Parts: sequence; structure tokens; C-alpha cells
Amino acid sequence: MLPPLRAGVAGLGTVGASVLRLLERQRRTLELRTGRAIVVTGVSARSRGRDRGIDLSNAEWHDDPVALARSSDIDLFIELIGGADGPALDSTKVALEAGKSVVTANKAMLAHHGLALAKIAEAKGVGLRFEASVAGGIPIVKTLREGLVGNSIERVYGILNGTCNYIHSRMEAEKISFADCLSAAQKLGYAEADPTFDIGGFDTAHKLAILTSLAFGTAVDAEAVAVEGIESITLDDLQAADDLGYRIKLLGVAKRTPSGIEQRVHPTMVRKSSAIAQIMGVTNAVVVNADAVREMTLAGPGAGGDATASAVVADIADIAKGDRTPGFGLPVASLAPLERAPLQAHQGGYYIRLSLHDRPGAAAAVAMRMAESQISLESIIQRSQPGANADAPVPVTFITHATHEDALRHAVDAVVADGHIAAKPQVIRIERE
Amino acid sequence: MLPPLRAGVAGLGTVGASVLRLLERQRRTLELRTGRAIVVTGVSARSRGRDRGIDLSNAEWHDDPVALARSSDIDLFIELIGGADGPALDSTKVALEAGKSVVTANKAMLAHHGLALAKIAEAKGVGLRFEASVAGGIPIVKTLREGLVGNSIERVYGILNGTCNYIHSRMEAEKISFADCLSAAQKLGYAEADPTFDIGGFDTAHKLAILTSLAFGTAVDAEAVAVEGIESITLDDLQAADDLGYRIKLLGVAKRTPSGIEQRVHPTMVRKSSAIAQIMGVTNAVVVNADAVREMTLAGPGAGGDATASAVVADIADIAKGDRTPGFGLPVASLAPLERAPLQAHQGGYYIRLSLHDRPGAAAAVAMRMAESQISLESIIQRSQPGANADAPVPVTFITHATHEDALRHAVDAVVADGHIAAKPQVIRIERE
Repeated sequence: MLPPLRAGVAGLGTVGASVLRLLERQRRTLELRTGRAIVVTGVSARSRGRDRGIDLSNAEWHDDPVALARSSDIDLFIELIGGADGPALDSTKVALEAGKSVVTANKAMLAHHGLALAKIAEAKGVGLRFEASVAGGIPIVKTLREGLVGNSIERVYGILNGTCNYIHSRMEAEKISFADCLSAAQKLGYAEADPTFDIGGFDTAHKLAILTSLAFGTAVDAEAVAVEGIESITLDDLQAADDLGYRIKLLGVAKRTPSGIEQRVHPTMVRKSSAIAQIMGVTNAVVVNADAVREMTLAGPGAGGDATASAVVADIADIAKGDRTPGFGLPVASLAPLERAPLQAHQGGYYIRLSLHDRPGAAAAVAMRMAESQISLESIIQRSQPGANADAPVPVTFITHATHEDALRHAVDAVVADGHIAAKPQVIRIERE
Repeated sequence: MLPPLRAGVAGLGTVGASVLRLLERQRRTLELRTGRAIVVTGVSARSRGRDRGIDLSNAEWHDDPVALARSSDIDLFIELIGGADGPALDSTKVALEAGKSVVTANKAMLAHHGLALAKIAEAKGVGLRFEASVAGGIPIVKTLREGLVGNSIERVYGILNGTCNYIHSRMEAEKISFADCLSAAQKLGYAEADPTFDIGGFDTAHKLAILTSLAFGTAVDAEAVAVEGIESITLDDLQAADDLGYRIKLLGVAKRTPSGIEQRVHPTMVRKSSAIAQIMGVTNAVVVNADAVREMTLAGPGAGGDATASAVVADIADIAKGDRTPGFGLPVASLAPLERAPLQAHQGGYYIRLSLHDRPGAAAAVAMRMAESQISLESIIQRSQPGANADAPVPVTFITHATHEDALRHAVDAVVADGHIAAKPQVIRIERE
């Protein structure tokens, strides 16, 4: 029997409290499964007095997480503070430098400093694990790092932000506007008071940058993610998508292409019959396409205290067993620099919704601009608008066959310049399963 | 850098050949990821002359897998022969006894001898891994053993046999009979010449017994699985299910209940809106319900050379890294004996299809028998049969609310004894998501 693993937990919010509860609830089985006891010997949080419903009497309290990270009473530092920099980064660095393994749920920190941290962990011969940083309770990090090592991965994509998926699911189901839905999500605690980070796609981008590294063996490069949020998606878009056999989801997509690796986060049209289109509400899902397994889908809770804590505890157990597989699967020196595929080189289908002035030649002019850019159309939908003003603009929706992003943008710019449209065109990329 | 891991591969069928190809194709990345080279130094198969399209010139040929298992030139024995006993079991035992780790895809051997083999592996301090034995390329073994260790698992269920799911999917889509569909599946190579093992549910039962052990920390007990095959499911059942908002899937279900652990394999009604109902064709899927993650779904290829080889290679990589986590997650002595919940104690909803004689009082008599057994009904469907003979029996379909298996069987027996029905009743259990 190995000596107990002494863990220090920094951050006692929802996730931190859940981690302590799970460690206690699963104490005996974790001991049997890892061959050693796991004991929380130290904790750190902002407010010492707050009642968290957990017994902290056996753990030493540290006001400063850095002091906990440095403490000689811990072997493992569990960082649940959050934030890309500040105390989370400082304490994580100190813990690694002091030769302690680290488990973290902090996607922002990993997206920006993951490589630097992995380098320290490697030099010190300790573990750095972050299952909880992507897709909550879904073991996608382990699956990519260990379960699919026999594969060359072609694409990984998914619904990685529950807030956005909740908003789209509810807009679609209840036919309510983005603004109404967002405030409902805020009331339910599914969206933050400042929702920019979620709905702007930045949270998804951080998670995608981590998945990209694991999938392709490349250095994490969050700066190379092209990001668009869901603010511009209206109920009209969701209804037009439905009409055409699609749903709109905020996806993070990382793909190997001839011009490099594409990393994109944007509202995306997915076929209603696809696995990813079935994912509703706050659930997350990740799809992996690879040469040997072809297609693999993992779906589960993307957030929540217990689900996230489940991932944290799995990492703790791996560390307890002495597993020192590099966090990103490969030694840092073996991670290839990410060769970024320019978004202009993206190839795929597009949804375009135009508000056309109802005058002779308008539709023909649009069709001609598409043809000039060698874009062929899969479908065009223009419905009569019962009760609409006779000279009101007419909504027309196009679905294109696969084309190049730059050709598409060129055509749309030309359409705008022609002056036939009454509002900014809506363009949404289509992702095929 | 560790010395190379020397592997011996026994069985060079579809999966064996794929394993050799993947090891070659991923040679460099596996070396980086595991910190050592993986070299196939020995092979064994029945026919030496057969052209498998792979270069075997660097591996020593053994006609006898036992000789390969014993060879001092290998550190790891990869068993891909198949069959619960015979050469697969003999060679696996010899390899473990000789202190070599074993990776196998052999569900039948594990279901029947898994515990005995794990015991030898443990005594010798070597690894025994079997990701490929359940659900092909889906990393469900690793997920249960490592990814969800923070959870207490309540239920694990899934579509674990591609042949059966292919048959049901195609019967439903093309409105063809079971017999026609089976012979089509045989022509396509999706079903064996003797399909009993697949369609009788035995293949699913082996896989379920392995999942049960991993999920609940119990000793593998394949004898304790209640098994029913899909032979009796007709197109009428599939259509009645569709009518009622359900699909029929052959599921393996393992569940913690107050009277012990239920292990059941049978055709099952699942709500059309559930994740499992979306799984069509030869795809497999596993759903895990647990206290922390609530619900997790993994879907992917359940068979095929490359998908199965992907799982084998993941196990090889873990062994190469020195991971010696027990195969079933716990030391053998810590696996609890499986307390079998009797099927009569099962609680759930049921679908019952009766062929009622069209005479006064028949339906009332059935309803009374249900009421006597305290069974309440969710729905009853009896449709007019245009063109049917006036005194032909009438098909009536019932969906019950949750009840006890013994109460249900008692009621159905009473209905049969009353003499109002013209054919054997069809009873199918419902599984709620």
C-alpha cells in the first residue's frame, strides 16, 4: 500500500465543494481502485466563514492559494479558482515548481498558459491533468489522449457551451427571441450576469483550443481560433433552418485540412438527423472523426458541480495511481506548432438569408453573383408573406453546395454592393456529419 | 527512454491484421506518446501462407499460440483468436503465468474466465486489458474503469450487438420481415452463417457481464444474465411500437435495485425521443446513469477490423506506459460477489400485444385481469382492420405503467387461461431513459 495522497483544494465554490463531497462519498472505493487513501489536507478559498455544508475540520485553511500550493503538507494541488491569470496561474505555477502534481478545471488558464504549465510539470516529473476543463463530466480529454491513440484524427467538433445550446433549444421550442431567452437563462442561473464570455463563443474557443492540441498533437493555440458568437442568430434563422431540415448550434470545430488546422467557433447549421442536432438544453456533446473509428460521439453534462467534480476526481485517481502521462498526451517538445488554416480557405456549405427588395431582377442579380463566384446552390426558399406590405423586402434563403469561404464572401459583398438588399445578409456555415 | 515493448499477436484475422496496420501507421506517435517503441516480435495464426497484405518478416512465426505466449521474445501477448476456451484461454493463461501482460478482444473468454485471468495477472503483477471486448471502438471500458471513478453507478445499458440493431433498423425502414432481413444481413457479412450467438442475445450478454463488473465493482457473472433474443420480434411489433412513440432495440441492461443487481438482455421498447433510440444500423451505444454525472452516452462503431483494433491499440499503449490498473478496476479480492436480482422482481413498464377474439366481453376480461394484478395502463390501442374478416382476431396493444414482472406475468397467464386470445401474447419490457 502506498502512503496516502495528500491533496490541497484551492477554490471552494460549487465545483470545489462537490469535489470534497465526492472524495468523501467514494472514499473507500477510490482507495481500493487507486491502491491508496486520498486525503484532503489543505484548502483555500476567499471566504473562510461561509457555510458550504462540508466538513473542513481536518484540512488546514490557507487564505492564500499560493501558500497552499507551496505547503509541504500536500502532494497534489487541485486548482478550482478559475480565471486565466491571477491567483489561479500563480498558485498552479508554484505547485508545479514545488514538484506537486496539479489537477485543474480551468480552461482559460490552459488555453493561454497550458503549454508553459505542461513544460514545468514535465521538468519536475509531475502530472498536470484537466479533464474537467472541457465538456464537464464527459471524459473527452482521456478519450482523445488515451482511448483513441491508435487513430489519426481528422476532425473533432462539438457543443461545448451549455448556455448557448440552452438558448437555441429554448428559442426554437418556445419561439421566443434571443433577448428574452437570454434573460430567462440568466434568471435560471444558466447564464452569467455578463454573458459575453459564453454567448460570444470565447468559452467554447478555450475548450476547442485544448481539444485541438489533444486531437492533433499540436501546441495549444487559442489565438488561432476564429470566433463568432450567437448574438446575431434570430428566431427567423432558427425557423428557416428548421424549414430546410437543419438546426443551428454553436459549435467548436477543429479540422485537419490541406492548408493546416482549422479552429472555428461559430453558429453552425447541422442536419436535423445528425447526432449533434439531437443535443438539447445544457447538455454537451463531442464528435470525433478518425481513420480507425470513423465516428465516435460522447454526450453528457457539460457543467454543474457534481458533473465537473466527477471529471476532477477521475484526474485525482489517475494521479494517485502514479499515472504521469503528459497532460496533452505528448512531451511538450513533441507538440508540433499549430499551422493555422486561414478561414478564407475554409470549404463547406453555407446558409445565406437575404432581405431582398421586391423589384424585378433582384433575385436574378443575386443568382448571377453566386454563379460568378462558381457557387452552386442546393436550395432556395422564398415564401409568400401573407399580410406583408406589398413593397416590403422579401426574405430569401439560400443553401449552397460546398464552396470556398473567400468565394462566398466575395459573392455576398457583390450582392450588397448591387443594392438589392434591405438589411445586412446573414451567413451561417454548414457542418456536415 | 524505456526499452521497446515486444508484442506477440495471436490471431491474424480482420482485427489482428488491422492491429498490425495501426501499430505501423501510428508507430512514431505511439513511441512519443508512450515513451517507448512498440515492436511486434512474434505472431501466430492458423494459416501461415495466407496473404494478409501485411509485412510479417520481422516477427517470428508460431504455429501454436501457446508457444508464442511462452516465448521469451515477447513482453505482451495480444490475444485475438476468439472463443471462450481452447487455444485462446490456454495461451492467455500461459502468457499471464509467464509474467507477460495480455491485451484481448475476447468477450466470451472474459465473461466466463475473466476473474480467474485477472487473478493470475494480479499475482504476476502484469496487466490484463480488454477495451475491444465491449462495443468495439467505443472506449466504454476505460470510461467506466477510470473516467467515472468518482461516481456511484446506478445503471448501464446499451446497444452492444450491431447485427441485431442492423436487423431492427432495416426491418423498420423497409418494412420487411425478420427472416428476410436476417438473410440480407448474412449476405452483407453483418450476420454469421449461424446467427444464434448474435440474435439469441448471447453476445450482448457476454459484453453486459463485463460492463456490470466494471460499473458496480462486482465479480463478472455471465450466468446471472437473463437473456432473450430478437427472434420473436415481428414487423407488427415494430409498427405498433412506432405507433406508440417507441422503438424496439435489443438492449443489455445492468441496474442496481433494492433486491440486487439486475442483468437483462432482451428486446426493449425505448422512447423514440431518447438518445438510444437514435442509434441505427451497426452502431453501438452505451448509456451510463450515475450519481454525479447523471447521464452519459457514448456512441460509435461496435465492430469492424479498424474500430476494434483502435481499442486494442489503446490498451497496448496503456501497457507500454506501465499502467497496471487492474482490468476490472479493482483488485480481484475487492470485487463483491454479484447479488443477482431475480427477474420476477423487475419493475418497469411493459408493452403487451394480444390477438383478441372479436367477441363481447373479451376486452373487458383482459382489463379485469390487469386490474386484479394492480396493473395500471398508460395506453390501449385497438385499430379497425380495414378488409379484415369480420370474425378474425383483433390485435390490441397495451402499454402499462411501471409494475412488477411477476404481477404482469400473472395477469398475462390469467388472460391466456381465459381463452379470449388467439395467439401467444407478445410481452416486451420498456426501458425509460
